[in-house]
Amino acid sequence: SRSLNLAVIPGDGIGQEVVAEGLKILSAVLPQDVKLETKEYDFGARRYHATGETLTDADVEALRRHDAILLGAIGDPSVPSGVLERGFLLKLRFLFDHHVNLRPSKLLPGVATPLAGQPEIDFIVVREGTEGPYTGNGGTIRKGTPHEVATEVSVNTAFGVERVVRDAFARAQARPRKKLTLVHKNNVLAFAGHLWTNVFNKVAEEFPDVTTDYIHVDAATIYLVTDPARFDVIVTDNLFGDIITDLAAAVSGGIGVAASGNINPSGEFPSMFEPVHGSAPDIAGQGKADPTATVLSVALLLRHLGYDAEAVRIEEAVSADLAERGALPARSTSEIGDALSVRVAG
Amino acid sequence: SRSLNLAVIPGDGIGQEVVAEGLKILSAVLPQDVKLETKEYDFGARRYHATGETLTDADVEALRRHDAILLGAIGDPSVPSGVLERGFLLKLRFLFDHHVNLRPSKLLPGVATPLAGQPEIDFIVVREGTEGPYTGNGGTIRKGTPHEVATEVSVNTAFGVERVVRDAFARAQARPRKKLTLVHKNNVLAFAGHLWTNVFNKVAEEFPDVTTDYIHVDAATIYLVTDPARFDVIVTDNLFGDIITDLAAAVSGGIGVAASGNINPSGEFPSMFEPVHGSAPDIAGQGKADPTATVLSVALLLRHLGYDAEAVRIEEAVSADLAERGALPARSTSEIGDALSVRVAG
Ligand SMILES: CC(C)[C@H](C(=O)O)[C@@H](O)C(=O)O
Ligand SMILES: CC(C)[C@H](C(=O)O)[C@@H](O)C(=O)O
Repeated sequence: SRSLNLAVIPGDGIGQEVVAEGLKILSAVLPQDVKLETKEYDFGARRYHATGETLTDADVEALRRHDAILLGAIGDPSVPSGVLERGFLLKLRFLFDHHVNLRPSKLLPGVATPLAGQPEIDFIVVREGTEGPYTGNGGTIRKGTPHEVATEVSVNTAFGVERVVRDAFARAQARPRKKLTLVHKNNVLAFAGHLWTNVFNKVAEEFPDVTTDYIHVDAATIYLVTDPARFDVIVTDNLFGDIITDLAAAVSGGIGVAASGNINPSGEFPSMFEPVHGSAPDIAGQGKADPTATVLSVALLLRHLGYDAEAVRIEEAVSADLAERGALPARSTSEIGDALSVRVAG
Repeated sequence: SRSLNLAVIPGDGIGQEVVAEGLKILSAVLPQDVKLETKEYDFGARRYHATGETLTDADVEALRRHDAILLGAIGDPSVPSGVLERGFLLKLRFLFDHHVNLRPSKLLPGVATPLAGQPEIDFIVVREGTEGPYTGNGGTIRKGTPHEVATEVSVNTAFGVERVVRDAFARAQARPRKKLTLVHKNNVLAFAGHLWTNVFNKVAEEFPDVTTDYIHVDAATIYLVTDPARFDVIVTDNLFGDIITDLAAAVSGGIGVAASGNINPSGEFPSMFEPVHGSAPDIAGQGKADPTATVLSVALLLRHLGYDAEAVRIEEAVSADLAERGALPARSTSEIGDALSVRVAG
């Protein structure tokens, strides 16, 4: 019999509430012969305040023994900006070599968008997750003086770019439209831009059936609001990906429904799945959070582990649920979770 | 009697057409006692192909003798990406120390936006123009090999950040809402983020009547489409400014109406004003281009040189023209220019 050994990190704020619903749906959808084991880890603001720790070597060793990680949200205003981001979230992405940061955007029927005319939106962003301006390279001299100089170094390697570009081509090839867009700023960031463009064009030769194009990141933000249907798969740098996926989430129904995967495709390390939204301390503990983004992250997790049929069932359940929302009175976090678990089990 | 000695760079594609209308409105609006002298410079793709030059030392010497520069658009697909951008546009911004890159966004009545519900949009972005990831710092080793490493270095100085932040505070103070938002990514880009945040908080003490806040660049893109009314003045880094001002232009009527100024506030070097749009070679020479963005850039130019009343007259003429567009048949570039020059003269 099969097993799924999951690390669960509820985290801060609404993280607790949404992860509970994610697990509810996971239990409901998993085939009976799969033994689900979950272990909860208490990372985030509370642990940091109690111990000063964000992620110890022992934590990393424990986490890496799991098949995958489900994360709610990490972050709280009581912790200085950057501490948990760099000490936990980014640290895990780097240590577990999560180089494919996968963020699908699909505007589902019945879902509100800030864009006029309910455009068709169905694309995925493959964001590089372990390089670019996120490496922490750089420094400061003369800190706090009128002569301070601070640098940030974006590091890009052929190795790192090629593997994420190849992953994106494969994902594009598996989709009906088979189209891949490289987003960068190669007219200004010429060193990194040349590397990205060159690797992209070289890997393209291996995927002759995939249509390719290139657009600058600034222009990409225009298209995301004026013609999002032009996108099928996007591959981009870590920072550009951070920016455009928040915009992509906003236009395709908001961060309440935006899922993401921090993926290590080789399986050498466990991949981590999380809603794009944060811990939303303002609504925490009130049952107001929408668990949909977490539930869709569970679908990404299942697909990553080979449970394709189960992932599809979750996605269909979410679609059906969202389509009916307009007609229903507002529901609590757990009511939405209950409705979804009935649908996936049915 | 006063004089205005203007360098005119029509540039490529629709640049020629839109600049002609910009000059038409400038002549119509200028007080009679102001002697307008213009000198046209032939920079861009044609010059590059003919001579291999983008901007020579002699060109720079000639340009700096002017009071200001009006630019149409530079760029053509026949020139490799980056050559004119870095060899002309960015070179001028750096040589003339255009550290205040000013980009207003105002959704005028009658103007279409991709956002539902015609939200209120009236903010300006003060983008730093001479630092950050735009300095050309960085490099490549093992180019073209599987072991290539390419870096881009974002350079941020207390000197450079403080002057643009102070400029933004002053602009915020002069507006009714008096609100300034810092946009950065200080939770990840900690070295530059700390410098920006620290300088911002320090300068804020000099402007106690200005309300301040901070948001990450990724979240800023969400607010730009879900709640653009929250913004009054934004100050940000060169690259973040590049990205969010294209989005800002898109939501507030499109790049057909987005103006910009590359400003050297001290007046040591001439400032340069240009529409945010590019050369649009696909519609060049057909009289289809909208000259409005260039006309509004002329208004920014006039305000920079102290002709406030004339700038307001242009902005009012544009508002009135845009408000009527829906009721009119499509007009050519010069028909729009003619209509606007009648309005500003009247
Ligand atoms: C919290 C932050 C470090 C993170 C990032 O910048 O990657 C977040 O914005 C995201 O997109 O997952
Ligand atoms: C053309 C390019 C160099 C330029 C920039 O990146 O600044 C443009 O996008 C802009 O915003 O003026």
